[in-house]
Amino acid sequence: MRLSTLFLRTLREDPNEAEVNSHKLLLRAGYIRRAGAGLYTWLPLGLAVKAKIEKVIREEMANAGAQEVFFPALLPREPFEATNRWTEYGDNLFRLQDRKKTDYLLAPTHEEMFTLLVKDLYGSYKDLPVALYQIQNKYRDEARPRAGLLRGREFVMKDAYSFDVTDEGLKAAYQAQRDAYERIFTRLGVDYVIVKADAGAMGGSASEEFLSPSPIGEDTFVRSPGGYAANVEAVATVVPPAIAIEGQPAAQVIATPAASNIKRVVQFATDNVQRADGEPWTAAHTLKNNVMALVSPEGKRELVVFGLPGDREVDAKRAEAAFSPNEVEQANEEDFAKHPELIKGYIGPVKDGKALLGLEGSSKIRYLLDPRVVEGSAWISGANESEKHIFDLVKGRDFNADGIVDIAEVREGDQAPDGSGELQLARGIEIGHVFQLGRKYAEALGLQVLDENGKLVTVTMGSYGIGVTRLVAVLAEANHDDKGLIWPSAVSPADVYVVAAGKDDVVYETAEKLAAEIVATGRTVILDDRLKVSPGVKFGDAELVGVPQIIIVGKGLEQGEVDLWDRRTGERRAVPLQSALQELN
Amino acid sequence: MRLSTLFLRTLREDPNEAEVNSHKLLLRAGYIRRAGAGLYTWLPLGLAVKAKIEKVIREEMANAGAQEVFFPALLPREPFEATNRWTEYGDNLFRLQDRKKTDYLLAPTHEEMFTLLVKDLYGSYKDLPVALYQIQNKYRDEARPRAGLLRGREFVMKDAYSFDVTDEGLKAAYQAQRDAYERIFTRLGVDYVIVKADAGAMGGSASEEFLSPSPIGEDTFVRSPGGYAANVEAVATVVPPAIAIEGQPAAQVIATPAASNIKRVVQFATDNVQRADGEPWTAAHTLKNNVMALVSPEGKRELVVFGLPGDREVDAKRAEAAFSPNEVEQANEEDFAKHPELIKGYIGPVKDGKALLGLEGSSKIRYLLDPRVVEGSAWISGANESEKHIFDLVKGRDFNADGIVDIAEVREGDQAPDGSGELQLARGIEIGHVFQLGRKYAEALGLQVLDENGKLVTVTMGSYGIGVTRLVAVLAEANHDDKGLIWPSAVSPADVYVVAAGKDDVVYETAEKLAAEIVATGRTVILDDRLKVSPGVKFGDAELVGVPQIIIVGKGLEQGEVDLWDRRTGERRAVPLQSALQELN
Repeated sequence: MRLSTLFLRTLREDPNEAEVNSHKLLLRAGYIRRAGAGLYTWLPLGLAVKAKIEKVIREEMANAGAQEVFFPALLPREPFEATNRWTEYGDNLFRLQDRKKTDYLLAPTHEEMFTLLVKDLYGSYKDLPVALYQIQNKYRDEARPRAGLLRGREFVMKDAYSFDVTDEGLKAAYQAQRDAYERIFTRLGVDYVIVKADAGAMGGSASEEFLSPSPIGEDTFVRSPGGYAANVEAVATVVPPAIAIEGQPAAQVIATPAASNIKRVVQFATDNVQRADGEPWTAAHTLKNNVMALVSPEGKRELVVFGLPGDREVDAKRAEAAFSPNEVEQANEEDFAKHPELIKGYIGPVKDGKALLGLEGSSKIRYLLDPRVVEGSAWISGANESEKHIFDLVKGRDFNADGIVDIAEVREGDQAPDGSGELQLARGIEIGHVFQLGRKYAEALGLQVLDENGKLVTVTMGSYGIGVTRLVAVLAEANHDDKGLIWPSAVSPADVYVVAAGKDDVVYETAEKLAAEIVATGRTVILDDRLKVSPGVKFGDAELVGVPQIIIVGKGLEQGEVDLWDRRTGERRAVPLQSALQELN
Repeated sequence: MRLSTLFLRTLREDPNEAEVNSHKLLLRAGYIRRAGAGLYTWLPLGLAVKAKIEKVIREEMANAGAQEVFFPALLPREPFEATNRWTEYGDNLFRLQDRKKTDYLLAPTHEEMFTLLVKDLYGSYKDLPVALYQIQNKYRDEARPRAGLLRGREFVMKDAYSFDVTDEGLKAAYQAQRDAYERIFTRLGVDYVIVKADAGAMGGSASEEFLSPSPIGEDTFVRSPGGYAANVEAVATVVPPAIAIEGQPAAQVIATPAASNIKRVVQFATDNVQRADGEPWTAAHTLKNNVMALVSPEGKRELVVFGLPGDREVDAKRAEAAFSPNEVEQANEEDFAKHPELIKGYIGPVKDGKALLGLEGSSKIRYLLDPRVVEGSAWISGANESEKHIFDLVKGRDFNADGIVDIAEVREGDQAPDGSGELQLARGIEIGHVFQLGRKYAEALGLQVLDENGKLVTVTMGSYGIGVTRLVAVLAEANHDDKGLIWPSAVSPADVYVVAAGKDDVVYETAEKLAAEIVATGRTVILDDRLKVSPGVKFGDAELVGVPQIIIVGKGLEQGEVDLWDRRTGERRAVPLQSALQELN
């Protein structure tokens, strides 16, 4: 690649459209251009990086025994109707009609199609196991496309699927893909953490995410000193032991003037009520009752009340995951207008000694509790009357609920569920996801094979994704400084960047010759052979483009020397021209 | 690739969905599967063939100096609005809206986006010329998807575009791509003819198509002994010389009872009227007036009458090309009801000595003529009265028209426009198209650069397409027999196909060892290592899959021999195992 002809223009200024560093630098260094909201065009340098990532993925998929196929992105509605994802995907799905008014979609993922393809070709346990994958354009109509390639609306994924007769087979297939992912990310030079994940809308059971730790990540994950790691959606709260109900004081309604929020309730209690254990009152002693609306993909709206300790908030992502495919909203004025029994600031499970919340209560609103609200635990709760609370309201004695749901925020210092210590919070970008789908899709689409006894059995599946175009951004985000990109050598658009820095013909001739010699060794070269461009501009572009090894053919040539420039360390040293080739690692 | 694990099931029977041989065989041999109307899934073998074609294209694009980029398939409406193609594409365009109700499309071709990208990055004549290309999924909502990969709705194209300041530059860029296409098709082993083409909906001037001759082709093209070749849409009719008007007999209206079609008119004339030159009357002496409706992309309907010699028909494709972007329909009953002056079977340009057809005529319907209707030519035409015709109606004396349009059928035996002899007709499949777009897109989208004098000049463009997935079908169509496919070696999914035909372990071990030795020489191998599958079935699959070189490890092994089987010639000969490798070409 010669900069005199390469389709590339570097930008001195940060483009307005970009917020995160990877996005800014990929635009400035001429790797991508914006084509629309969440839509990007790949320029030659970007395409070279993407191709290197795809090559590593293909090699490791082959090592894991997975075979490559390729599906259309434009797909008919029917298979997605059979699994209900046509509806469940909601606004995230691009839907369209053809000239005959038949429904189609742009596939966000291909579980249905892979399932149908295996059903189409295979029919016996002898045909299995099989693992298939594709590297293909995917589409999601994101509400907020952001950060360039990190969250686009058209993006490239590697999606693999395994098909087995037995659960053990699925586990082995899952492990093979998981191992392949570790090899892929290691080879690409991507820092990653494997965390337990919530299976979410995809259904299924065992599920892990590969996150690349990054302050700009959209995923929050936790880690413990003992090695526990999980996506925040997947953290199970450590449940305190149940408490004996016997001997606890009776619940009593107390007038709490103006105590319409937790802070004021705690202040009132501190000022007016002595705790039996002598400890000070805190928000953790109050039961906060949060009114939420679940909106189903079909648009059905259901109110639920969630009771949790008053010192915690609901975590929106955990709630989304728990109630998927429903969307979760805070109840609005209209909801409250329909339920005058809900007195804001004073909501609680019980009114006048009778259940108000819960399907068995007078409101008929489903009531769910945080797992910390254990049997025998006593709470200050709203009394469903203005300026009144109930003290010593005991779970299992005075109130009950329709179920437990684990959607309160996870905090730094919370205990890891496996006893491995206190959790620390961090942010990461999801770069891969492996999980055991089980038989959900095979059942929905009728993928069965004959077993050894000639009996039809349903196949069990795994699903394994890597965000290919997202990885370009993740690598750029993790490998840059204020001057530009610094690619790991495995994904650099070229192995060596040769700068002809000077005006004399001999500089250009030497640089050409050196570049040709490097190419002859099987390496790729970007050669800055631009005439009438100053060495300063050339060095700036070299730093921006980010090839890790740079050779400068310039002033030193009079002494028979060229400069080797390590883009990452910044170290620059003169070496004899003759030994430049050997000095490259 | 081992058949014991390869994701492949060959089919014994022709699938119902397939009509043409390439489609049948690609399905039966496990290269592709149907995913929806005009939508195909690529299985491992098909993907291998497609990858080989793409590799050849990439190498030759690089040789031609074109640089690879990659655009989204999902694109915003605006650029296509600026060139009016959002509307002009009519029903062929897949349109959709995102969650914000913003209009998008699935791109059928990318002229607009390439133009905008170059505008985005470049600004000076010094930046040009540049040629860019992509290999990418395209979408067209075909009215009749057919013949598998030959006319699909999602398909892969290589589309390249050149950008130049001068017309000479464009010509050179065009030639470079044209040369690259010749190299590509030659390397792939595709038979092709380069024909003059109509630029059609794409605008622009010089345009040639690469057609692969095939009886199942949708394109008709002509060839002359002297080397002329053109798509039937692009053939210019050889215009006979004008005839002196002076001295010709006056036009006269003659009652022609029941002569409501050309055949009857000729019969009537033969029975009742003596020709001045003594020759017999033929349909070529009558002027047939065809009433057609042009429907604009916006839905506007305009009637036109086309007059041509009565021995010719309108060619639908030539008419479509001439009137693009309008669609061409035959006038319907409703159209005739609005124009009672048009008497079916007796339509003509003149009534009672005054013009009826034409914008100047009483009907105000545009009247167009075939180029053979030259000045001074005399015709029998309908008199716009039931059962009456006008004889000796002379063009230029008795009637005129609003223009000439060359849309009559081209016939075997017609003269080539360049005087190179009689035309022969043949059918072909379009595999490539090169043309000089000129400044149409650059003007519509404002692509200008500063010239040497600092003046803004509009860039001139070329557009160059190859149907990548279609080529797979074209190659299959041209390379098969009744037993299966026979790939040219450049695109075969593997270089060698090794069959282990027997039950003894030594057969499998030898086949394995031989396959490994071939792979070690850098060639790819498909190894049929299936246990419990009969040699007959294995040979059948080998013929179906169509790798050109087959090695059979079987009975001959006792004599230390294997069979080399040439799939194309069918020749099968025993060679010593030791020399099998050298015997492969």
